[in-house]
Amino acid sequence: MPNRSKVQSTTHLSPKMKPLGILGGGQLARMLALKAHELGIPVSVLSEHADDPAAQVTSLWIRGRLDDAETLRTFLSGCSVVTFESEFLDANLLSKLEAATRTSIAPRPADMAALQDRLSQKRLLTQHRLPTSEYFAVATAEEAGQAFESLGGSVGGAVVFKKRRFGYDGYGTFVVRTRKDLKAFLANFDEIPGSEHGFIAERFIPFRRELALMVARSKSGQTTRMPFVETFQKDSRCLWVKGPIKKSPALERLGRSLEKFLGNVGYVGVMGVELFDTGNGLLINELAPRVHNSGHYSMDALSEDQFALHLKCILDLPFEKPEPLSKGFAMMNLLGSSDRAPKWRLPADCKLHWYGKSLNRPGRKMGHYNVLAASPAKALALALKHRNAFKV
Amino acid sequence: MPNRSKVQSTTHLSPKMKPLGILGGGQLARMLALKAHELGIPVSVLSEHADDPAAQVTSLWIRGRLDDAETLRTFLSGCSVVTFESEFLDANLLSKLEAATRTSIAPRPADMAALQDRLSQKRLLTQHRLPTSEYFAVATAEEAGQAFESLGGSVGGAVVFKKRRFGYDGYGTFVVRTRKDLKAFLANFDEIPGSEHGFIAERFIPFRRELALMVARSKSGQTTRMPFVETFQKDSRCLWVKGPIKKSPALERLGRSLEKFLGNVGYVGVMGVELFDTGNGLLINELAPRVHNSGHYSMDALSEDQFALHLKCILDLPFEKPEPLSKGFAMMNLLGSSDRAPKWRLPADCKLHWYGKSLNRPGRKMGHYNVLAASPAKALALALKHRNAFKV
Repeated sequence: MPNRSKVQSTTHLSPKMKPLGILGGGQLARMLALKAHELGIPVSVLSEHADDPAAQVTSLWIRGRLDDAETLRTFLSGCSVVTFESEFLDANLLSKLEAATRTSIAPRPADMAALQDRLSQKRLLTQHRLPTSEYFAVATAEEAGQAFESLGGSVGGAVVFKKRRFGYDGYGTFVVRTRKDLKAFLANFDEIPGSEHGFIAERFIPFRRELALMVARSKSGQTTRMPFVETFQKDSRCLWVKGPIKKSPALERLGRSLEKFLGNVGYVGVMGVELFDTGNGLLINELAPRVHNSGHYSMDALSEDQFALHLKCILDLPFEKPEPLSKGFAMMNLLGSSDRAPKWRLPADCKLHWYGKSLNRPGRKMGHYNVLAASPAKALALALKHRNAFKV
Repeated sequence: MPNRSKVQSTTHLSPKMKPLGILGGGQLARMLALKAHELGIPVSVLSEHADDPAAQVTSLWIRGRLDDAETLRTFLSGCSVVTFESEFLDANLLSKLEAATRTSIAPRPADMAALQDRLSQKRLLTQHRLPTSEYFAVATAEEAGQAFESLGGSVGGAVVFKKRRFGYDGYGTFVVRTRKDLKAFLANFDEIPGSEHGFIAERFIPFRRELALMVARSKSGQTTRMPFVETFQKDSRCLWVKGPIKKSPALERLGRSLEKFLGNVGYVGVMGVELFDTGNGLLINELAPRVHNSGHYSMDALSEDQFALHLKCILDLPFEKPEPLSKGFAMMNLLGSSDRAPKWRLPADCKLHWYGKSLNRPGRKMGHYNVLAASPAKALALALKHRNAFKV
């Protein structure tokens, strides 16, 4: 059994409380809303379309845009606490509205701001001595050329340019391998949408495998973490996750450092952490201030899932360290491959989580399933086998 | 790991399918709807009030009465398959509407009819040679007196009279211990609401403990069962459940007989089975053609919960035998004790399932929580301890 928590929260829940608010109506919002229902937390969703995944699962859906100040103000005023499913919102505006309405937003808009910009995210990692690759800020084509040289691009190493803002699932990432690549990149530099916000440049990291974990901190300071898992990306999109990864002193050390980091920053909520295992060390690739695709396995494979954990963090409720319920687990993303309506046979041992999106589209995340087995490898083999049952 | 199923279902799911319909908007409907969302099954709920537990968790809520033929006909016409959370509906009407709309109802109205009447339920058990206590049909005060004598009431044994219809949680049950009791019961016989439907009379069974289990059968004939659990009733209402009960040849034999029974009857869905363990044998006390309070532990304690299992049965999807995820588990019902709005601190290891009822009321089922531990006894001890955290 997990260790009992020593932190005593005094927060009370009640069905009469103002609802928890979720900004956004996608799959992350949907899974948060379903978990809130389970815990008896009234939940309101702000999104644009009545057929959004999260809009379908609560009677307290509010239609509106996430970039409209008046809509946000009204929504916040009706909620006890507000969270979000994407960090790409106007953090400045949210911060002002938080002060004006006295409805707290968690994670805090300041943390959203720090992590939505890859440059400030890199600075934060460096400042807290968390391992990450060397980087340069790039605002102009000239600086891009200098960064390419400084990072060894001219002596055969590839260099990765990532947009500072609004990049995800590989969008806004440019791998420059040669001087010829560089020339083409620089020639188009000012035409790349979003280039006005600038880029960061990093050395391309040849990794043995990619890892991920979820870390969490509650408002009153309790921290915990989920197991390390291996993630596999195809076309820069998460395809599968397996775990738990065998414990090692280096992983445990990094896990503890990350929990400490959340405490030092005063962060509230769960945070997704993506890592490169270079075979020679661990480098943090990216942080996300929210529930995360790499943590979806927890819905069936751990004693506490990331959605419940996030809700407990932001409502300041105590929690236990999430522990695996089986020796191995795997998560398979169901990515669209056409515009046709999906259909599937449900294998008996697939724990399906479908998002209820109204339209299928190539590459779109339509759902995922989890599989438990006697080892991570066996779970992954089963998960891969079952993929054929889904026409998505 | 559970055994793989040998039954191959060819049913396909699709987000474009007509919704699954649920008759009723209480907690059982709510938990079914939440699980349907997870599996990507569109779900529509028919109930009277917008603040009903299940009405809050789907955008496809329809307002209406479950006893109105036109409402039911319209609802059925819009659904792919319809299920229910209470067996006390007009089975005859549902049967006709099923034929008229060609929307199948599962469990079948005929099975609802057989189980909603305690007399036909007893006959069914006897006919299928399932162990149950001796009984008499009682239509008049005179027959009640005869049954009392025949069951040994006059030589010191207590006799239980149960209304044939609409009895639940102890409502409609009369324990007659003495001739004086009998006289009072007979004097009021014709004034007892529902007495026009008659009673059954049984010998009062002094039991060592009460047990329960869920059995299940899919449309194409796959059957399975959940572990036996011990249940504890206070004031005739389920207070807690603990399990799993240590396996014994007698229990396994009865479990297999019940699965076979479902096959012989052609039943579709999960069925709740309540039992007396007399210390000298097992007697079936009651069957319910639906998800059941005694199976709520499965939401956190088994590899498959009763709600998913029920949906898979009625949609003809394959399933695995639900297996415990820990060595012990317990479920605690949160029964109202006042009219005040409930509030609670959430203990870290409580898996809460709150029903979102708008009003609290003494004895009302407001929610439940599950606890996992290293043994059934430890789980129950924890569950009892945590009850103080809830002001319900």
